[in-house]
Amino acid sequence: MVNKVAFLGPEGTFSDQARRIYDPRAVGLPCPSNTAVIKAVQEGVVDKGVVAIENSLEGPVNDTVDWMIHNGDGVSVCGELVISIEHCLLAKPGTTSRMAQIVFSHPQALGQCRAYLQGNFPTARLVASLSTVAAVQDMLDSNVPAVAVAPYRASEIYPVAILARGIQDAGNNETRFIVVGREKQGPTGKDKTSICFSFAGDEAGLLLTALACFYRPPKRKINLFKVESRPEKTALGRYIFLVDVEGHREDPSVVAALAELKEITATLKVFGSYPRWQGR
Amino acid sequence: MVNKVAFLGPEGTFSDQARRIYDPRAVGLPCPSNTAVIKAVQEGVVDKGVVAIENSLEGPVNDTVDWMIHNGDGVSVCGELVISIEHCLLAKPGTTSRMAQIVFSHPQALGQCRAYLQGNFPTARLVASLSTVAAVQDMLDSNVPAVAVAPYRASEIYPVAILARGIQDAGNNETRFIVVGREKQGPTGKDKTSICFSFAGDEAGLLLTALACFYRPPKRKINLFKVESRPEKTALGRYIFLVDVEGHREDPSVVAALAELKEITATLKVFGSYPRWQGR
Repeated sequence: MVNKVAFLGPEGTFSDQARRIYDPRAVGLPCPSNTAVIKAVQEGVVDKGVVAIENSLEGPVNDTVDWMIHNGDGVSVCGELVISIEHCLLAKPGTTSRMAQIVFSHPQALGQCRAYLQGNFPTARLVASLSTVAAVQDMLDSNVPAVAVAPYRASEIYPVAILARGIQDAGNNETRFIVVGREKQGPTGKDKTSICFSFAGDEAGLLLTALACFYRPPKRKINLFKVESRPEKTALGRYIFLVDVEGHREDPSVVAALAELKEITATLKVFGSYPRWQGR
Repeated sequence: MVNKVAFLGPEGTFSDQARRIYDPRAVGLPCPSNTAVIKAVQEGVVDKGVVAIENSLEGPVNDTVDWMIHNGDGVSVCGELVISIEHCLLAKPGTTSRMAQIVFSHPQALGQCRAYLQGNFPTARLVASLSTVAAVQDMLDSNVPAVAVAPYRASEIYPVAILARGIQDAGNNETRFIVVGREKQGPTGKDKTSICFSFAGDEAGLLLTALACFYRPPKRKINLFKVESRPEKTALGRYIFLVDVEGHREDPSVVAALAELKEITATLKVFGSYPRWQGR
């Protein structure tokens, strides 16, 4: 049976690249936003969704993270992929960088190329597009000279010239995608569990007690891969903490740690346990 | 002597509002970006800069935070302010919401109104402007029907109609601004200290040990106001942690905690100690 997999469209985006690596034979459903990808899974329109959650330069992908925290009912994270991001500068043939008055791209990509753009386009207007590939369409539609920050793949789909390659601020630009589905993933022995939690009090000192649930030597020493905070959206200084730990939610030590954590938190949510990305 | 204070311009932005509260008699210098505000202080063009660092809905203001981490030499945080953010929907007189094909605003503001905009402008293009007030200018210059998400104050400066007020997703929308200067601020007795640190190893478990430096009961119990992480920009899974603690860097207990922290971190930077915002 062929799976249906939602991704941030149109064809040629990094999300498209990630979903092709995840399941090369699946039928892809391009969606207009990251939240629409997750919604397509929640509404049963597709089997899985592949959605960006974190970038090595820009940090969390806020709309994905916030949707999982506040509206993520009925979906479970069942996989992850990490792909290298190379941003290119594309323009209509004949347009040079010096002529460009507008730089189109997805805000995440504009952020990842901030220093390059400030250095090379100090007076150009940065304009947000819905995706890095939509940026190429916006650039082609623009009446004033413009460039687009987009994946190399887009230069093979559209009639454009490549003005520069690898314009991201740091060489090591990787994006982590999660795969979301409606069923929980069983243990594989090389798993990772993503959770989020918040406290009733506003004492950030409680975080120390919370993280200690995973570290009770000599018996329990669960590695933490990620500790992040997002605003709780109620007041400044109130946070939701996002933590990735080693192991599966059914592993006895993780079960024990989560039980302890539940006692001291106001909310505790397990996004899912899934095999760690090993490269491909 | 009248101070010169840099802010994210043009006149009418929330940054302008914040810098007027900070020093009503100062001469303001509008800057094109948050990083330009900090640079103006570093280069001695102004005495102080007032710059957004955190919002209760959207979280950290990445360009400010990253500049302070990576390029913040020569400046010290010497104050903070918290102001309430009310976003309004502005348009040319005669333009209705239904006609609008483009929504202009600063990306931070677009993010703070994400649910409202998705509900009311599902097919409109979201376009990034350099500030919430520049968005009003962009909207007025637009050839296709457009709206702008901007501060109420902008409706008093420009010839626009107010289509809606308070369109932010959560009622409690506050932004914290920091004041940066070239001199360190002395203790006032009600202070806060902002630091950042990273580890040589990639074990996120080290965070537990680091936070414990501030909590050595019964003698040392330093409150943590904020714990945040930003990508280190070298590889996925490498983070720089940003922590705000109670007290001044000259307080004996903070001195002792920072000395312990220095031992176990690869980098440790004190952004500054400054009086906590008490409202006004």
